[in-house]
Amino acid sequence: MSDGLRFARRIRTSPYFSRIEAHGVTGYSVYNHMILPKSFGMSVEEAYWHLNEHVQVWDVSVQRQVEISGPDAGRLVQWLTPRDLRAAQGGRCYYIPVVDAGGGMLNDPVLMKLADDRYWLSVADSDLLLYVKGLAIGAGLDVSVEEPDVNPLAIQGPKAPEVMASLFGSEIASLGFFHTGYIELFGTRQLVSRSGFSSKAGFEIYLDDSSLAERLWDLVRDAGRPFGMKPGGPNLIDRIEAGLLGYGNEMTRENNPLEMGYGKFCQLDGSIDCIGLAALQQIARTGPGRMIAGVKFDGPPCPSCHNPWPVRAAGEGGGQVGRVTSAAWSPRFRCNIGLSLVDDGYRDEGQAVNVTLPDGSERAGAVCGLPFREGG
Amino acid sequence: MSDGLRFARRIRTSPYFSRIEAHGVTGYSVYNHMILPKSFGMSVEEAYWHLNEHVQVWDVSVQRQVEISGPDAGRLVQWLTPRDLRAAQGGRCYYIPVVDAGGGMLNDPVLMKLADDRYWLSVADSDLLLYVKGLAIGAGLDVSVEEPDVNPLAIQGPKAPEVMASLFGSEIASLGFFHTGYIELFGTRQLVSRSGFSSKAGFEIYLDDSSLAERLWDLVRDAGRPFGMKPGGPNLIDRIEAGLLGYGNEMTRENNPLEMGYGKFCQLDGSIDCIGLAALQQIARTGPGRMIAGVKFDGPPCPSCHNPWPVRAAGEGGGQVGRVTSAAWSPRFRCNIGLSLVDDGYRDEGQAVNVTLPDGSERAGAVCGLPFREGG
Repeated sequence: MSDGLRFARRIRTSPYFSRIEAHGVTGYSVYNHMILPKSFGMSVEEAYWHLNEHVQVWDVSVQRQVEISGPDAGRLVQWLTPRDLRAAQGGRCYYIPVVDAGGGMLNDPVLMKLADDRYWLSVADSDLLLYVKGLAIGAGLDVSVEEPDVNPLAIQGPKAPEVMASLFGSEIASLGFFHTGYIELFGTRQLVSRSGFSSKAGFEIYLDDSSLAERLWDLVRDAGRPFGMKPGGPNLIDRIEAGLLGYGNEMTRENNPLEMGYGKFCQLDGSIDCIGLAALQQIARTGPGRMIAGVKFDGPPCPSCHNPWPVRAAGEGGGQVGRVTSAAWSPRFRCNIGLSLVDDGYRDEGQAVNVTLPDGSERAGAVCGLPFREGG
Repeated sequence: MSDGLRFARRIRTSPYFSRIEAHGVTGYSVYNHMILPKSFGMSVEEAYWHLNEHVQVWDVSVQRQVEISGPDAGRLVQWLTPRDLRAAQGGRCYYIPVVDAGGGMLNDPVLMKLADDRYWLSVADSDLLLYVKGLAIGAGLDVSVEEPDVNPLAIQGPKAPEVMASLFGSEIASLGFFHTGYIELFGTRQLVSRSGFSSKAGFEIYLDDSSLAERLWDLVRDAGRPFGMKPGGPNLIDRIEAGLLGYGNEMTRENNPLEMGYGKFCQLDGSIDCIGLAALQQIARTGPGRMIAGVKFDGPPCPSCHNPWPVRAAGEGGGQVGRVTSAAWSPRFRCNIGLSLVDDGYRDEGQAVNVTLPDGSERAGAVCGLPFREGG
């Protein structure tokens, strides 16, 4: 499958892997100790247009679930995040920043409440399982913390509802954004959410039985055929345009949720008990000093961003005011677009900046809001 | 650098990366959210012979350090592992299994005691940092838990002592196995250990200043020239022959340290307070039922092992008695060799078995002890 990456059991494959290989995967990443298939012969731009016009099936088994269950589960889940979960209900997804005592981001999972004493965290790329295990052991909580054998399959793109309707009926296909429901699949009951790491927010099926994976893949593939479905994966252009931030890319432990624009998910009035509260309250008092923003910039299509690119205020002697952490050429806006932290005082729409690429070249650009829009 | 792997900031590069690229890296892995360079043009077998006869320089920055410091550091470190650390001293390395409450392996770092209140854990491929942070927060311990910007460079192979002597003098070059010392480097003081993930146990320099990385690489490369040094990385054949177990390959959370042969690192008499003690005591009472062993098997060179391969007792109706988790063709023993858990009753030297490869073929083989030796 790869010329360069040396495989071992340590980098896990999913139960859909025979199908991924059969489709001829050409690009992938490693995420949560697992292969994330990203492309199948199409360029990133071709896949972007296809995703925005049709429908794709993605193996997103890398979105591992951390299952927290037991009498103290609710208390532990609230302790993990500054988001107020007192009114959290079943049937909904909750995006929850998870921070350490200093307010630094450790992960940004999606929470699903399966029962009053049972939760799933659908995690980004870090071993949140180990953090939660540590907390539970350290605090002596009466919970079980495990990674169940759940392998999500995503159906993404504007025609995703039609595919879902043809397979599972109109009720599940009309789920609201970040709502969940259940489908019957080969005699089993499987959780489905209206969500996904694309601008179109399709569906994710949280398959909890690996032995059904290949049958599910084939079922979805066949149902998708009339809609032009192709296999795919999270698309760099699409996610940047939509302003979808990636843990490890836009944010690490060096970042707090306030500068990521997640202040709306931080209840800092002291009414909930969560890790990092004092640190976040302190940051909120002074303001984080910088916030995530968009940057559009000129020139030929930029390379992908491995290490942050300095963003400087335009003009003589302009100092560094930000750093791009993800970037791509946008065929929609006919320019390069990047996600960047930008200092206070430089985030006005249209603020002129220069982005320094790895080859040392300077590209003229302008700050804009997220998600990216025409004009601006 | 790669046809298949899609790079992003999320998969970090080391401060030696310009040198890695200049040498033309051809094979790599992803480990602790970071690129691990593994090969530079030579086949695994060519690199194996070179490593066993000469000397190589490896960028092992992926061995991230978890630094635990503060008044409760010693107590926390002992709580992490069943290994008795009461007599642990500075100047030594300690291999410590880290297990959860059920005795399942979470990581198997090498511990170095830098001071009574400051420790480094040089970690395998899981976010032990998050586990330790969780424990510290959960238990309200007075410690700081961080990942310092330390990027180890390894010098491995039989001529490693000569290279180290030429660079840093004979004292450091004659360090005993798993001992540590300090070198002076460009006006800084850097920790060195006699260790490494090869059969020859060379040296690892724990560079704590990224700005010196390229100068260190060049210094080592130049000093290695008379000794035929080449760039390289952990070698699959060499590590299997030596019986070096890899976290994520031979062991996961499903495994306990007793079945990995780490009983000697488990003090289970109740004299120390550690996580998982009761679970390990229970396993020790009944015995783990299976233990890691070597398997030699016939036929042409096997592929690499991504998912465990069943090992069956030879003979009519022989049931499964083990599973190979890492395997390679050994040019030294002129047969395939694998690391396998093997059930009690089937681990006698020479026990006849069959190994089932992914293509369904059966290979005749025999169980042996570790490390692999001639005969057996």
